[in-house]
Amino acid sequence: MSLFERTDETKVLRDPVHGYIHIDLQIIWDMINTSWFQRLRRIRQLGGANMVYHCAEHTRFSHSLGVYEIVRRMITEVNDIRDSLNEREKTVVMLAALLHDVGHGPYSHAFEEVSATSHEVYTCRIIEEDTDVHRLMEAAASGLSREVADVIRHKSANPLLSQLISSQLDADRMDYLLRDAYFTGTTYGEFDLERILRTLRVIDNRLVVKQSGVYAVENYIMARYHMYWQVYYHPTARSYETLLHMLFKRMRDLGETGIDSLPELFAPLLKKGSISLADYFILDEASCNYGFQLLVDHSDPILRDLSVRVRDRKLFHYADSTPQFNRMMRAKLKKQGYDLNYYWGRDTVVQKPYVPYTGTGGNAVWAVMKDGSIRELSNASNIVYSLIHGPVNDDNKVYYPPEAV
Amino acid sequence: MSLFERTDETKVLRDPVHGYIHIDLQIIWDMINTSWFQRLRRIRQLGGANMVYHCAEHTRFSHSLGVYEIVRRMITEVNDIRDSLNEREKTVVMLAALLHDVGHGPYSHAFEEVSATSHEVYTCRIIEEDTDVHRLMEAAASGLSREVADVIRHKSANPLLSQLISSQLDADRMDYLLRDAYFTGTTYGEFDLERILRTLRVIDNRLVVKQSGVYAVENYIMARYHMYWQVYYHPTARSYETLLHMLFKRMRDLGETGIDSLPELFAPLLKKGSISLADYFILDEASCNYGFQLLVDHSDPILRDLSVRVRDRKLFHYADSTPQFNRMMRAKLKKQGYDLNYYWGRDTVVQKPYVPYTGTGGNAVWAVMKDGSIRELSNASNIVYSLIHGPVNDDNKVYYPPEAV
Amino acid sequence: MSLFERTDETKVLRDPVHGYIHIDLQIIWDMINTSWFQRLRRIRQLGGANMVYHCAEHTRFSHSLGVYEIVRRMITEVNDIRDSLNEREKTVVMLAALLHDVGHGPYSHAFEEVSATSHEVYTCRIIEEDTDVHRLMEAAASGLSREVADVIRHKSANPLLSQLISSQLDADRMDYLLRDAYFTGTTYGEFDLERILRTLRVIDNRLVVKQSGVYAVENYIMARYHMYWQVYYHPTARSYETLLHMLFKRMRDLGETGIDSLPELFAPLLKKGSISLADYFILDEASCNYGFQLLVDHSDPILRDLSVRVRDRKLFHYADSTPQFNRMMRAKLKKQGYDLNYYWGRDTVVQKPYVPYTGTGGNAVWAVMKDGSIRELSNASNIVYSLIHGPVNDDNKVYYPPEAV
Amino acid sequence: MSLFERTDETKVLRDPVHGYIHIDLQIIWDMINTSWFQRLRRIRQLGGANMVYHCAEHTRFSHSLGVYEIVRRMITEVNDIRDSLNEREKTVVMLAALLHDVGHGPYSHAFEEVSATSHEVYTCRIIEEDTDVHRLMEAAASGLSREVADVIRHKSANPLLSQLISSQLDADRMDYLLRDAYFTGTTYGEFDLERILRTLRVIDNRLVVKQSGVYAVENYIMARYHMYWQVYYHPTARSYETLLHMLFKRMRDLGETGIDSLPELFAPLLKKGSISLADYFILDEASCNYGFQLLVDHSDPILRDLSVRVRDRKLFHYADSTPQFNRMMRAKLKKQGYDLNYYWGRDTVVQKPYVPYTGTGGNAVWAVMKDGSIRELSNASNIVYSLIHGPVNDDNKVYYPPEAV
Repeated sequence: MSLFERTDETKVLRDPVHGYIHIDLQIIWDMINTSWFQRLRRIRQLGGANMVYHCAEHTRFSHSLGVYEIVRRMITEVNDIRDSLNEREKTVVMLAALLHDVGHGPYSHAFEEVSATSHEVYTCRIIEEDTDVHRLMEAAASGLSREVADVIRHKSANPLLSQLISSQLDADRMDYLLRDAYFTGTTYGEFDLERILRTLRVIDNRLVVKQSGVYAVENYIMARYHMYWQVYYHPTARSYETLLHMLFKRMRDLGETGIDSLPELFAPLLKKGSISLADYFILDEASCNYGFQLLVDHSDPILRDLSVRVRDRKLFHYADSTPQFNRMMRAKLKKQGYDLNYYWGRDTVVQKPYVPYTGTGGNAVWAVMKDGSIRELSNASNIVYSLIHGPVNDDNKVYYPPEAV
Repeated sequence: MSLFERTDETKVLRDPVHGYIHIDLQIIWDMINTSWFQRLRRIRQLGGANMVYHCAEHTRFSHSLGVYEIVRRMITEVNDIRDSLNEREKTVVMLAALLHDVGHGPYSHAFEEVSATSHEVYTCRIIEEDTDVHRLMEAAASGLSREVADVIRHKSANPLLSQLISSQLDADRMDYLLRDAYFTGTTYGEFDLERILRTLRVIDNRLVVKQSGVYAVENYIMARYHMYWQVYYHPTARSYETLLHMLFKRMRDLGETGIDSLPELFAPLLKKGSISLADYFILDEASCNYGFQLLVDHSDPILRDLSVRVRDRKLFHYADSTPQFNRMMRAKLKKQGYDLNYYWGRDTVVQKPYVPYTGTGGNAVWAVMKDGSIRELSNASNIVYSLIHGPVNDDNKVYYPPEAV
Repeated sequence: MSLFERTDETKVLRDPVHGYIHIDLQIIWDMINTSWFQRLRRIRQLGGANMVYHCAEHTRFSHSLGVYEIVRRMITEVNDIRDSLNEREKTVVMLAALLHDVGHGPYSHAFEEVSATSHEVYTCRIIEEDTDVHRLMEAAASGLSREVADVIRHKSANPLLSQLISSQLDADRMDYLLRDAYFTGTTYGEFDLERILRTLRVIDNRLVVKQSGVYAVENYIMARYHMYWQVYYHPTARSYETLLHMLFKRMRDLGETGIDSLPELFAPLLKKGSISLADYFILDEASCNYGFQLLVDHSDPILRDLSVRVRDRKLFHYADSTPQFNRMMRAKLKKQGYDLNYYWGRDTVVQKPYVPYTGTGGNAVWAVMKDGSIRELSNASNIVYSLIHGPVNDDNKVYYPPEAV
Repeated sequence: MSLFERTDETKVLRDPVHGYIHIDLQIIWDMINTSWFQRLRRIRQLGGANMVYHCAEHTRFSHSLGVYEIVRRMITEVNDIRDSLNEREKTVVMLAALLHDVGHGPYSHAFEEVSATSHEVYTCRIIEEDTDVHRLMEAAASGLSREVADVIRHKSANPLLSQLISSQLDADRMDYLLRDAYFTGTTYGEFDLERILRTLRVIDNRLVVKQSGVYAVENYIMARYHMYWQVYYHPTARSYETLLHMLFKRMRDLGETGIDSLPELFAPLLKKGSISLADYFILDEASCNYGFQLLVDHSDPILRDLSVRVRDRKLFHYADSTPQFNRMMRAKLKKQGYDLNYYWGRDTVVQKPYVPYTGTGGNAVWAVMKDGSIRELSNASNIVYSLIHGPVNDDNKVYYPPEAV
């Protein structure tokens, strides 16, 4: 297969967010059919938010297709981008878009914390170690897998490629905001994708937005802000993630001595050293769910209790974290015999709607004004300027079993 | 007819913004069928924006029904409001909602400037002078028309009634943002009406929003902000309004001596003194449009030229207003023989997303926090706080005939 | 200007039905800015249906842009069509799409019946007589106006051009179904435009749909069926059209002797012989509306009465037409002194969801099956077969003043 | 807890199909929180269609909430239904709506065929045997669980209750059509739910639709028809279900002797006799997915091969079933050593858009005409009459491994 071989006719996949996903390169089509990409059907997009928004059951499979589609449109419909990239770069960036989340494990945050490895590390391993994903790329063009991985780890020779996929205004965020809004059934994640695409330009190999598109970017930034607070940082979602975290932590704390008593599939998680891709492959949300079912009958009462809570959505309660409340509540829990390592959670979330340019790199958004000058977004938008100079939202919560009260 | 007589069964009118408009009071139904309310079918909602957004052809007729529907939902679905008002107040506020724009003239801004009378004055006259609207109310309950007009002029005994229709978070704005977004085909006017309604409360006879609804209000405020800049204040819309203004001004400047040469329907506009309701009734957009057609053949070359421009959308160009540019352009126009009174326009628009409480009245938005305290919106929302403390958007433009350049 | 001159950059007009209307030919842009095309802003798309669906206030201006946009997509996105037409044909068919309704008069049906001239006659006159529309085309390419008119009157050398605009599966119907559904707020006019476009093919210079698109065509046919019965043939809409018809008829019956007493703008309608384009230009819905206002004070009591009804939506009642009822009702009306020529209306509507090929021409829809054979739609779809062999819906109604009962 | 205890305030769950799910009875809220109901989060709504429509990843959890919501609206917003039922019946029918699918196993069709037990049997067992679902109901009101199960098995004293949930026009179908349309991203499942609800009446304890709602029912029937052919009966979905069926069949054919070699979780499936609820509980799609992962390394080559196909979406090809093709293809497969029991599938699907009343019971749809007469739907609708008298769509397909060709 050559790198630029086309499919017989354009293949289209119905997608409620984008209408259709269009595929006309054979390598993209084959990549979708690899076992690693199909595995994403077994990993949900939102770790805990579907405990609040019951329809948010969509997976990283559809999100990955969506990011691919936005990048495909960028490189075909945005003249400046189309003209800035050669054919090989176009294929590379579409593959990077499709595969950017291929290394995601189950319940991303809780799992990543316990495994202490970022999903991006796995993404690059899957692309570069001996997998069907890797073999397919190398068969098409030698060295291709490295180029794709480089886009994902921001080492690409052409920085524009990484900007399309991972910056403050990228295809990844654009897809997940629209997609999560659609599947949660909320409206605050919506923004005018068409308008942003229409007003993108490339100047000095940097992605910029025309002044006439600034309001659409403002809208996108507000959408992101609201999605964070109403969906991703919803305390109930965080409570569920806390439970998952505690459950994984308890397993890990049982140590290597406990391995035999645990479902086999969790073993790789508990062994020292990194997880093999073969073991990682199996660790999807389906298998974890089954593993949790088995833990319901485990001899360890904490594992037993936590796994029932996870299975049946018997969530921890939450409260604002204050010294007085925490002291009072922790004392109460201790008195009732709860092990605070597993029955007392705490987190802090902060969200800056937008991070301006600091002079030390970073990925600010840039606008080209009518007079041709280029400004950093917060100098092109009063709204954004106000937001980054105003107070920052943060939220500190504690989590504990409701029966304790 | 009694005030509370119900229709045989609930009448429903299909409305894309609200699904259905529900009517179950006979007086509401009869009011819709008056000649004054039907006249609103001949007055568009957006004075000039349909020159930019070609589908924004909706009228004040549907907007008025929409405001009525939101108020109807407020007084039936929001428990606190339902319990705060007696039956007569409920009917009064629904009538006020339905009729709040009944006095609108054609092309609101341009026309109001020339006639130097606010449309609210006409609204109250239509309600209180001898019209079918007035007679219908008085037949139902003596004194009713006065009560309805009092809500519109903020003199109601119960200030809650005016708040529902006219404040910074009212049924009027809620409907027009959603409706104008729908008919322009933009998304930035959308916000979560359901959520706002669900979180409204009445405390000490004041409308407040629960803390859990603050984000929805933030969204609404951003929606308003974006609709102003992208739709209502679009320079092309303002250019068209400038043309209309110039055309009306030229007619008025022809003075009473010119009356005979003008289409009869414009006569009332030119006479000194206030316009009779009978004359005002005829001055809808349909008749103005016909009047403009007649002016195309008028002996006055300025009238002739301006009316062709209005009819055929031959708009003035616009530019940012700067001393240099203005000086240069005005000189050029003069040299070419243009009368600057009619061929040089200028406007300034400013939009504050939200005006906080200043201690001297006003209509701030209030939130009730989880702990029961009541805060002014900018103290309950970081976003709103940032917006009102950041720089304010304004825009100064000048308008002139494109051929002059 | 040359025929293929492009605009500086693609111009886009926001449209809620299609997202955006895209324009990149200068002649299309200039055509939109002619006085005749702008005149369509003053003619509503739906003659009477906005008396039932109050938001259906959209005009032929936006519909015409929509038909143009669908044709533009057909000739750029449907490979077979793109490859079947040369550049000149593409421009011709886009112009024909844009202008196909440019000859529409006010309140189409009622007006056409009285003027006894089809709007297509005016469309071709506007294109071929001395108008700004005509001059623009001829300046771009000699003979162009004739070619455009030929597409509209189905005399084009290439029959495919007419098929795109006027057949049983054409851009005209596709746009108005989607548009009328959007603006009425109903859902039954929706169908999958994307799918139909994707499955269109050209075989032997005939437009066919692939078998895999047949279900989408079934949906389109059902959409059409339901829109007819729920919107276009709604008895209330027909009642309003009956009133308009009666009003125009009464004016005409006053004869040439009555001309002086009538508003000047109606004069051309009453004179024998065809209407000049200059007179026709002025006869839009705005001027008719103003004319009706004037008739409210006319000396003829019938004109006076009918014009108040039209203005204030005081509609005739309707009932199923049966010999008994009609006899009874007509007697009652006569007894009460009503002139049955103007106070007794009657109509019959029939709608065949689809008309199959009859062997004598016509414009059936054709499908290409997986095996390559071509079948007429009713042989490719069980649904369509059933519909055309089942009973046909028709509806006979009579209309009369409600006070008479 | 009493049967009618209310929650503190109305609880609302955001749902993109219905806006919100409203809960104000404590027993409904508690039921949602049972382990059996939460288990539905692990069972997708569409067995194989998400292999075609990649976003159709929604579960029976959200569908069950949706059916509950429609029934809740029926008994509160449809006056006739509200007045026909007493308070206990209302709670019973809401519970039955919520629980009607609680007995669903994984991949419904394939699994049901192999286990040879309908999911309704499990639903009733879960309601009536000793589960948290059962105990909760009996604690609220003795005998309640029996009443709820009776609604599901159509044995309710009041047949109206079953009609709401299971007939040809019921809350179950209404929700799944709208929901599956939303999550597949297709439009053909949409119909006007509001209109149908508004026109429902109860006459002689039978649910009927007013004549003015017949067109909305026609639309619903067409929606159902199209969803069947475009989604539920899509050959790719059926191919996936065929694969699942073959995999389950192979496991079962290994017989009791093979149990030891199979993942423990599949054991109950292979033993003779019925499955205990404890075992059934674990058999969700998550655990099956994990089980399939284990089978990938099984010693039986057929199991190994089929499980890889299921996991990685390496589907069988499909073709129209014809004697010639089948003979040819079966010969080819045999020659290549394929075991036809597992590598040759065949199915037939037929869909009647609507089944009219046959005189022997059944659940036809009835309409009440303007004159008060009651007609069976196919006598009230020309469309429906045509559909049931026209040819019936059926489709016979065969399935086989693509490598064999």
